[in-house]
Amino acid sequence: MADHQQIFDQLCDHYRETAKLENISALLGWDERVLLPENAGAYRADQVTLLSGIIHDRNTDPKVGDWLEQLHDSPLTEEANSPAEATIRRLKRDYLKQVKLPKRLVEEFSHSRIIGQQTWVKARAEDKFATFEPILDKLVSLSREMAEAIGYEGEQYDALLDFYEPEAKTAQVRQVLETLKEQLVPLVAEIKDSGRVPNMEVLKRKYPLAQQEQLGMSAASKIGFDFSAGRLDVTHHPFCTTIGPYDIRITTRYDENFFPSAFFSTLHEAGHGIYEQGLPHQWFGLPPGAAASLGVHESQSRLWENIVGRSYAFWSHFYPEAKKLFPEALSDVPIGDFHFAINEVSPSLIRVEADEATYNLHIIIRFELEQALLSGDLQVKDLPGAWNEKYTQQLGITPTSDANGCLQDVHWSAGLMGYFPTYSLGNIYSAQLIEQAREDLGDLDAMFASGEFMPLLDWLRENVHQLGQCYPGDQLVERVCGDPIDSAPLIRYLRSKLGPLYGIEH
Amino acid sequence: MADHQQIFDQLCDHYRETAKLENISALLGWDERVLLPENAGAYRADQVTLLSGIIHDRNTDPKVGDWLEQLHDSPLTEEANSPAEATIRRLKRDYLKQVKLPKRLVEEFSHSRIIGQQTWVKARAEDKFATFEPILDKLVSLSREMAEAIGYEGEQYDALLDFYEPEAKTAQVRQVLETLKEQLVPLVAEIKDSGRVPNMEVLKRKYPLAQQEQLGMSAASKIGFDFSAGRLDVTHHPFCTTIGPYDIRITTRYDENFFPSAFFSTLHEAGHGIYEQGLPHQWFGLPPGAAASLGVHESQSRLWENIVGRSYAFWSHFYPEAKKLFPEALSDVPIGDFHFAINEVSPSLIRVEADEATYNLHIIIRFELEQALLSGDLQVKDLPGAWNEKYTQQLGITPTSDANGCLQDVHWSAGLMGYFPTYSLGNIYSAQLIEQAREDLGDLDAMFASGEFMPLLDWLRENVHQLGQCYPGDQLVERVCGDPIDSAPLIRYLRSKLGPLYGIEH
Repeated sequence: MADHQQIFDQLCDHYRETAKLENISALLGWDERVLLPENAGAYRADQVTLLSGIIHDRNTDPKVGDWLEQLHDSPLTEEANSPAEATIRRLKRDYLKQVKLPKRLVEEFSHSRIIGQQTWVKARAEDKFATFEPILDKLVSLSREMAEAIGYEGEQYDALLDFYEPEAKTAQVRQVLETLKEQLVPLVAEIKDSGRVPNMEVLKRKYPLAQQEQLGMSAASKIGFDFSAGRLDVTHHPFCTTIGPYDIRITTRYDENFFPSAFFSTLHEAGHGIYEQGLPHQWFGLPPGAAASLGVHESQSRLWENIVGRSYAFWSHFYPEAKKLFPEALSDVPIGDFHFAINEVSPSLIRVEADEATYNLHIIIRFELEQALLSGDLQVKDLPGAWNEKYTQQLGITPTSDANGCLQDVHWSAGLMGYFPTYSLGNIYSAQLIEQAREDLGDLDAMFASGEFMPLLDWLRENVHQLGQCYPGDQLVERVCGDPIDSAPLIRYLRSKLGPLYGIEH
Repeated sequence: MADHQQIFDQLCDHYRETAKLENISALLGWDERVLLPENAGAYRADQVTLLSGIIHDRNTDPKVGDWLEQLHDSPLTEEANSPAEATIRRLKRDYLKQVKLPKRLVEEFSHSRIIGQQTWVKARAEDKFATFEPILDKLVSLSREMAEAIGYEGEQYDALLDFYEPEAKTAQVRQVLETLKEQLVPLVAEIKDSGRVPNMEVLKRKYPLAQQEQLGMSAASKIGFDFSAGRLDVTHHPFCTTIGPYDIRITTRYDENFFPSAFFSTLHEAGHGIYEQGLPHQWFGLPPGAAASLGVHESQSRLWENIVGRSYAFWSHFYPEAKKLFPEALSDVPIGDFHFAINEVSPSLIRVEADEATYNLHIIIRFELEQALLSGDLQVKDLPGAWNEKYTQQLGITPTSDANGCLQDVHWSAGLMGYFPTYSLGNIYSAQLIEQAREDLGDLDAMFASGEFMPLLDWLRENVHQLGQCYPGDQLVERVCGDPIDSAPLIRYLRSKLGPLYGIEH
């Protein structure tokens, strides 16, 4: 045992050091998106590439393989899901993945991702899918090759999904999302048929930027984002990144004439940030100190953004402050009208602007299409047609161009196949978690209405954040909620909020 | 030759990569001073330490020694001061220095510097030299030990000076600064005896921050700082740092009730930044692409801050803009009064607030004291007394405490002995350079008055910036001006400006 402990400590030190380099790389990326002078891009790319090489060498260092070999059947792995067992299990899986990928493939993939993104920017600006087609074709082939190199038990897509939602299986995700789709399509139709529409004009009035920032920071802080261990800055595409255990940075974007844009992206990123801030820092840089999965990450952001942030109870607390900050825009707007407007459901073409009810349909379309691309059932050249057909069928609207169709998202151009479903898993998990929290904590709405968010935060800290990556995402949620992954709570949540607003069944 | 060229290319690639890591470290430092969340300091220190270790390993890699051994008598070093010769000469010198220092000493020194700075902050806040004395004593011993390990031909101080002003010799610097002192002391006395004083109140009116920023950026941009390859941000202590060839960042600090604070620190740091932006970028990361020395660096910042930025001609151009931006403060102030106020000469206790005429006396005191500390002629415990005596003798004022006496500067606490004289070398070089520029370019004042700064900038680019580190600082200046280092031009410059203002000989 003494020896094993010693090897384990060496292993942990090694990965803690690697994490420092990874977080330096995160700072380089953050700085690039937030501050970098116009002409400094090329050198920044060189700096990032150099660090990646150093990190890759550390991650594939044969001594890591030796250590893991000696540890994987040791007394340290006896207690399933303990920090030590999780560390060894997760690092071993990552290590084997890294060494299975031939260097040639890794390099070709990195290079193609960069070309992919540059080409995508151009193709989207020109609204010309043909420009993007060859590199997408290459990225699909390389993804397939990577899946084969890594290996899988069930289906090829499993190997890719595992990067983002470790240990998840495609078959299960497919089944869950199928069920979800069957429930969402009629819900959206009922809403459309209700004939009711909120007055969206109230959100498009003038909302001065300084006051938007003030309200956003006030709300982020109130729900638990710690500004002494983080920052809020401005970027075109909001994101959250970890520079250190006490340095979690979120960004947002401001639109003076559309209130929801900054406010809800701030809450969303604060949700991600609160999760990162709540991970056990004594394990920082190691699996027990890392987020369970992208799905669980998204569950935290969507929970605060939507389930909390778009609730009537939340605004019972914040609306007086909002009215004080935006007297011109809101003085004649009853809270009910405001609440209905921020919960509008209306099928649209762009995923990132979609409402809570239609959002997952956007995801399901992408999930279906990327499986078909990977398996070869769909040829890359036929993607635009297939995309538009699915939008027409499932959302009832047809893209007017590829720019607002299959060219809208960055993911595939960056080689991120297998990533999309984690958004929907996050939405599903968030509803399962809040249902359990209501059961454990009682009347959450009453708490929100009086500005008390700490009971919910503490509950999440204890049940989700503090467990880090000790459990895979779905097991973590099952452990807390008692049930395996299930879309029913999400549908119940949506109907309970949207039902009264649209006068439909709930 | 072919083989030598190949080795040389490998050497250059190695150092170019190291430079990327050094510039990443510079970003970590910049971010720490500009943006870092309150609780993130400890982890940031760990990140920086890790990078330092990687950089140190690269700098002492035996293969570098082999390459340099093979190159130092090769055809590539035949042409003195060519980029290749300078590269080999400078890297060899640095390499030998690095490998001569025992690892134990390097580590002890790094550690003591950190403790030194922490202790200094405390001692200064408490105004208690005794708190600082033991660690300063240790830092002096370690500096001595380093000088011995590195070796020197003339005197021990040479080995330290060489870190900041490569190839400079203490004996020469001492002689130049002695002469300067002999000329400055009477100048300052004449000014005092003149009985004239400017109306300083005009600078202490209300100068709104946004307008200060606007004027500072406008002036920095006009003299040549390129904001598409740099930034201006806010910190307590202004500085300039290089994150990449097209990413030079400067900072300033704003005081709403004292105009010179931000404006002249912006010009000063812009001067440093303009030099960095003007270095030959094809050699970035290598000696021909690096600043010649700290003295030459300071010559660029002081030239733009003082010789240009405090000239009547400069304000002939900028004063109308300033009056428009600060109508309340300046509408009743004639340009002559403003110009006199920003050129006030008055002995003071704090170096960083000193005027152009007394500034070098502050430096000379430090230079004399650190030589005495190093040689053992002065015991650390006797420093406060020696400091106060010199201020009384040379500046005619006596510190009221150690906080505004020998505890005011960070340098010694950070182990930077041998650094101070480079400030004065910079002032001397700046006057030599501008005198030559006036000879080559004609009536610079007429150009400044009509807002034309590019002729001077182009002259500096060609004669100073583009030569990088191919010549040592003093040789670079001698090459441009025809004369070796000489304090006469500085005295001529000061008398020509201050003479008419104070009615003294010029």
